[in-house]
Amino acid sequence: MPESHVQSRSSSSFADAARGVVAMAHFAGERHWVPATSGNFSVRIDGRLAAVTASGADKARLTEGEVIEAEISGPKHPRASAEAPLHLARYAADAAVGAVAHIHTLPATVLSRRHEAAGVLRLEGWELLKAFSGIQTHETALDVPIVPNDQDTDRLAALVEERLKVSGPAYGYLIAGHGLYVWGASAKDAIRHMEAFDFLLTAQLHEEAAR
Amino acid sequence: MPESHVQSRSSSSFADAARGVVAMAHFAGERHWVPATSGNFSVRIDGRLAAVTASGADKARLTEGEVIEAEISGPKHPRASAEAPLHLARYAADAAVGAVAHIHTLPATVLSRRHEAAGVLRLEGWELLKAFSGIQTHETALDVPIVPNDQDTDRLAALVEERLKVSGPAYGYLIAGHGLYVWGASAKDAIRHMEAFDFLLTAQLHEEAAR
Amino acid sequence: MPESHVQSRSSSSFADAARGVVAMAHFAGERHWVPATSGNFSVRIDGRLAAVTASGADKARLTEGEVIEAEISGPKHPRASAEAPLHLARYAADAAVGAVAHIHTLPATVLSRRHEAAGVLRLEGWELLKAFSGIQTHETALDVPIVPNDQDTDRLAALVEERLKVSGPAYGYLIAGHGLYVWGASAKDAIRHMEAFDFLLTAQLHEEAAR
Amino acid sequence: MPESHVQSRSSSSFADAARGVVAMAHFAGERHWVPATSGNFSVRIDGRLAAVTASGADKARLTEGEVIEAEISGPKHPRASAEAPLHLARYAADAAVGAVAHIHTLPATVLSRRHEAAGVLRLEGWELLKAFSGIQTHETALDVPIVPNDQDTDRLAALVEERLKVSGPAYGYLIAGHGLYVWGASAKDAIRHMEAFDFLLTAQLHEEAAR
Repeated sequence: MPESHVQSRSSSSFADAARGVVAMAHFAGERHWVPATSGNFSVRIDGRLAAVTASGADKARLTEGEVIEAEISGPKHPRASAEAPLHLARYAADAAVGAVAHIHTLPATVLSRRHEAAGVLRLEGWELLKAFSGIQTHETALDVPIVPNDQDTDRLAALVEERLKVSGPAYGYLIAGHGLYVWGASAKDAIRHMEAFDFLLTAQLHEEAAR
Repeated sequence: MPESHVQSRSSSSFADAARGVVAMAHFAGERHWVPATSGNFSVRIDGRLAAVTASGADKARLTEGEVIEAEISGPKHPRASAEAPLHLARYAADAAVGAVAHIHTLPATVLSRRHEAAGVLRLEGWELLKAFSGIQTHETALDVPIVPNDQDTDRLAALVEERLKVSGPAYGYLIAGHGLYVWGASAKDAIRHMEAFDFLLTAQLHEEAAR
Repeated sequence: MPESHVQSRSSSSFADAARGVVAMAHFAGERHWVPATSGNFSVRIDGRLAAVTASGADKARLTEGEVIEAEISGPKHPRASAEAPLHLARYAADAAVGAVAHIHTLPATVLSRRHEAAGVLRLEGWELLKAFSGIQTHETALDVPIVPNDQDTDRLAALVEERLKVSGPAYGYLIAGHGLYVWGASAKDAIRHMEAFDFLLTAQLHEEAAR
Repeated sequence: MPESHVQSRSSSSFADAARGVVAMAHFAGERHWVPATSGNFSVRIDGRLAAVTASGADKARLTEGEVIEAEISGPKHPRASAEAPLHLARYAADAAVGAVAHIHTLPATVLSRRHEAAGVLRLEGWELLKAFSGIQTHETALDVPIVPNDQDTDRLAALVEERLKVSGPAYGYLIAGHGLYVWGASAKDAIRHMEAFDFLLTAQLHEEAAR
């Protein structure tokens, strides 16, 4: 991702935000994290608006014309994807969230289902936890919330935000049998967090296989 | 795959259909799903004809000159591959089938053999089931038929079509120790379905490894 | 691999053979089958000569200048790699061998060591066995010989050729903890056979993991 | 990596060394061994200086402007990464070390944690051990030291160097739950050693899975 394509949240116009959305989508597409046109991406424009991928786009080949401007707390945009509420709820709940990515990595999908009953997956002791903004040591236990899947995404978003209010600091959550939501202060941070989750969840999958 | 290379079935000429065949083949080739010149691809032209990969072509590097025009219910084309009957039987049996892909993915090959005795592999509860046209919720159980392998592809095609008549809605089937057949209304849909099956079968392989 | 780079054995000059060697090396390099400058490749020129990769070359970036002309039964070429005798012994023993590849795929290395005591790895019932020239049905059991590793490659070549005399038809053999030798009538066939072995050995690795 | 980008240690200027650092970083980046901006790389310039990646750079897209000139035994460079002491301690301890790479491969991370209590991971009997400079036969047991992770990298570097003084010849070491340090006489050798460790540790992971 060219650095110039990513802007800090405070100075973002729609065009800047759309470029951040495309950068996240292409990064995820190259890794095969948005199979079968799944996944979606967004970047906050300001306190009221966010740039979000339109419904039906092939994220691996996303163009800026397939990014729409959605109101964070307003009525649904006609071209918004069914999962837009899960993005917008994050912006509404936490002013520090500048970009959100939803991806379908294989370990996220497999582990989310395996640990659904526990409601949480703990990632602990790995150096790469330091890739998350604000984590300074591997001596950290990151509890990643897991929520049950639900086709009613307004209801699902409400459940997620309830969970995040009582959990410790979070960089993402899992939807069981579905995939991963991950965020950061900017598209650049969200990309780094996607890559960190993919590495850590793959390591976790291997570690569980050896038990 | 450029959008312009894929046409809806009703307006397809041979040239359009051949471009769809090449798009499917290259997509599969990039993923290493047609190892050792295996695999084959077709797109329906109309009620009578389909464009099909010729015998012996390297699908990962397929050119439009290696695509032939075959009669769905007529005599065998001299350059048709041995597996052409499995494609043509799908077009004859179901007017909604616009494109067919045959690929050799690793999880398809391994799981088809492991579950051969059961005759079916159930994929259930995964969000990515929604990538199949017409599936609206993850609360779905998709039974993928598994048939024994057979070098007599006319006999195999007849067995497959018998199985598909009595199964629920299907987007593909497995041939034990061999690979996957998958279809859709268009080349674009068949590509999305290929990618969905690859993801779901890989997830299934990991889930079975943890049992 | 462009078709024009591969010639049938009877008409090969050194330049043609060297192009075949480079095509095999690049194909293997793209798949990461020649890690850490390992692996080597050869194409027969005629009954007396073969084009072979020189010692020390990085096969993934091989150039034609790094291919030498070696005598099949003559004295060692000063730039020949230590493993050249294993290539040349194949040409001396079997006039149908037109190209030889030596690669270090992960499943070949792991399975060769796991089954070393048995001296053989049986691949049976897979459709992709038909990728080997002359195999017409999946109802085939291919016994791949496994020999112990040995740094004395003249002694190792003699042992291999003894084993191949008494084994059934073979397309390759494994050296325990080391890797795979594979051949065909041409560079094109050897490439197809490499890809077939990689697929089949990976499938075998998954099948054994589920036992 | 173009050959011309890598120079033997004795003739390296800063520019040559920086090119070697970039070549290592790009090689590792293409393999996804530096996820989430992790990893770092260095090349010795002479007995007093080394070229080292600056803090915060995305190694997969490293430019020469992100490489700094650090004193091996002097005060910390203001742009040096927190892990620079682990590189510099290697140059100070062993005049034969010309380049150092730190990568986060998946098998290194998983196996380092699994075998932390033993303090060592033995790699034994694999042909690819010969990829390490000076190893002439597969009949070799290479004991790779494992040290506990520590955010105090000066203390960690001291512990590592103590361990390396009493271990046999080493080409790298593991930090538990963290990753791999690997070195060689030149950037070219360090790249070959990275690739060898990745192959051997992946093979080891598969071998342990079958126990």
